[in-house]
Amino acid sequence: MSAQVRLCEVGPRDGLQNETESLAVAVRAEFIAALCAAGHQHIECGAFVRADLIPQMQDTAAVLAALAPMPSVRLTALVPNLKGYEAALAAGCKSVAIFTAASETFNQRNSNASIDESFERFAPVAARATADGVRLRGYVSTVLHCPFEGRINPATAVAVAQRLLVLGCDEVSFGETTGRATPNEVRELCAHVNGAGLMNVAAMHFHDTYGMGVANTLVAFEAGVRSFDASAGGLGGCPNAPGAAGNVATEDLLHLFAGLGVVTGVDPVLQHRAGEIVAAALGRSLPGRVWRACHP
Amino acid sequence: MSAQVRLCEVGPRDGLQNETESLAVAVRAEFIAALCAAGHQHIECGAFVRADLIPQMQDTAAVLAALAPMPSVRLTALVPNLKGYEAALAAGCKSVAIFTAASETFNQRNSNASIDESFERFAPVAARATADGVRLRGYVSTVLHCPFEGRINPATAVAVAQRLLVLGCDEVSFGETTGRATPNEVRELCAHVNGAGLMNVAAMHFHDTYGMGVANTLVAFEAGVRSFDASAGGLGGCPNAPGAAGNVATEDLLHLFAGLGVVTGVDPVLQHRAGEIVAAALGRSLPGRVWRACHP
Repeated sequence: MSAQVRLCEVGPRDGLQNETESLAVAVRAEFIAALCAAGHQHIECGAFVRADLIPQMQDTAAVLAALAPMPSVRLTALVPNLKGYEAALAAGCKSVAIFTAASETFNQRNSNASIDESFERFAPVAARATADGVRLRGYVSTVLHCPFEGRINPATAVAVAQRLLVLGCDEVSFGETTGRATPNEVRELCAHVNGAGLMNVAAMHFHDTYGMGVANTLVAFEAGVRSFDASAGGLGGCPNAPGAAGNVATEDLLHLFAGLGVVTGVDPVLQHRAGEIVAAALGRSLPGRVWRACHP
Repeated sequence: MSAQVRLCEVGPRDGLQNETESLAVAVRAEFIAALCAAGHQHIECGAFVRADLIPQMQDTAAVLAALAPMPSVRLTALVPNLKGYEAALAAGCKSVAIFTAASETFNQRNSNASIDESFERFAPVAARATADGVRLRGYVSTVLHCPFEGRINPATAVAVAQRLLVLGCDEVSFGETTGRATPNEVRELCAHVNGAGLMNVAAMHFHDTYGMGVANTLVAFEAGVRSFDASAGGLGGCPNAPGAAGNVATEDLLHLFAGLGVVTGVDPVLQHRAGEIVAAALGRSLPGRVWRACHP
């Protein structure tokens, strides 16, 4: 029997949130519908955050309202606090994500809270989600490198992940935020994940900023990870670095896994159609390698 | 003791030959000198080919003449036949490269010769090189995939490499021309290379067209390969696909190997300076991931 991996398509949230432009509700809904049509079973669909701070994610409720029902697809929205959770619940969300970091400095700058404070903030969200039957996903950013602190001990990242699991998350995504990590560091992280017994509830979230996204995915897969985040066309490059890569591109992972004989359940041709919706709306090409090769 | 790899910087030839513009002699010479300053010990410096067919490589003799003597650096020029060899010798070349393919169809279209005919063409070149004390490098294109024939049996590529070694080549570069190959295919190729006893004389030449360049480099390194071709900034994308990746970028391999604790002998900061010469002359950014991350 072939090995299988689960992909979480993060283009509509982690991807679009890091693009300069804000896309219209109809475009974002069309994008998500196209990703579903391509076979995705888990899509990060948006975030319930302050529109004045993150305009790219405004009207996530309207995006969800514009979608036809897709009961078999997990649509996860980021919520920073209880207020965001309540907005997500009102919008009919059945899955929300909470996020913290392995680096104190990064979490302070990203969420204006210490790691402990972020858990205090998420405890009521998790309690409500459990009571409401809403699925909970956790994110740990800066699992190996922090833009401010440098190298991060992977044991720290795993300890934070364990706290998220205790809160009720059914999966924790390990975010290699900087894109700087290289394969042996990823192997070390995976060894910690495995040693803590978390392999079945761990996802890896790589960025391709330094070209390591596919290689890091490969070594994590070979270490036993079976869940990966990726974004259509590699959306999500830093707005301050035009042309720089963002999340590892979904199409690149589809090419990798197809070559390894690993089943993803996602149709590469239909994946391209989804990316084309965003590229047309942005009015420019996307950074993914396979995407560029197929869209001269 | 740390592992070491040998890099062959192919930007001035495989890179620039595939760019639309032809760069001036002075710029190409400055680029090569900057690559030497960065620590490269082997540079593919140009080609002695017909200027009407490949204008990007015209005046390679003038480029070499513009360089200060660098006796410790191997500067290799491509020669398609005896006429090209004589021009290279007249220009003072101490190292030339001959090239064929593992795919008959590709070789016919690329060199207008069958594989056997390409060896007939190269036999007198090799004889002259041996007599003249000129080093000989061999290239085998399409070692795993051919744009016309599809999958290629890696045993075929290794058999062609063996013929090049018999001719007198001291190293054979295995060109994964299409960029489509994935890590398990590369491992299979490396197993054939190792089985034939060629690991010490084999280089791997990857393209990043489908985002596999770094991952393929990693698995080849772990299979025992210690010699890799790469181009500054990932120069060498297909002229018909703007933004598409070309050769795997030297900077990306420097990031990979530094993270693995593998010595390359190349200074990443000075490598960037070399790329900047070409980017300024082309008037646009280069496609390499690390290059883009460092040149917002």
